[in-house]
Amino acid sequence: MKLRIVVTLKNGVLDPQGKAIEHALGSLGFSGVGEVRVGKLIELDVADGITDTDIDAMCTKLLANTVIENYRVEKQ
Amino acid sequence: MKLRIVVTLKNGVLDPQGKAIEHALGSLGFSGVGEVRVGKLIELDVADGITDTDIDAMCTKLLANTVIENYRVEKQ
Repeated sequence: MKLRIVVTLKNGVLDPQGKAIEHALGSLGFSGVGEVRVGKLIELDVADGITDTDIDAMCTKLLANTVIENYRVEKQ
Repeated sequence: MKLRIVVTLKNGVLDPQGKAIEHALGSLGFSGVGEVRVGKLIELDVADGITDTDIDAMCTKLLANTVIENYRVEKQ
């Protein structure tokens, strides 16, 4: 089974990478670009029998820093 | 308008970050995890009038390295 874990910064957490992209797009001449937020997309091939508990444990233990990040699991 | 740009490595391109996650999950005791691939999710607030040409130019000039990465645009 294929899993997609989308990890994004929580609202209110400063995103320096997003800010850098925002400024770079402006200096490249692209107008009309507001806030930019950068997150991670982690795609995993896992055994079909994996439990939701295991998936959550993988996310909270390793894939996302739940202090500053949210994660969302998409099964395909 | 909100744009989501999903940037992923092309097939066949080595993903050291993915490999590191794969090994870390194994050493944390999670079995049944196969290949792991890591990509970027870039969310932008842009003006409604932005053209597809501009969006593609932003991706090819800055957001994705099209030599080793694919990108996909999602409008919301």
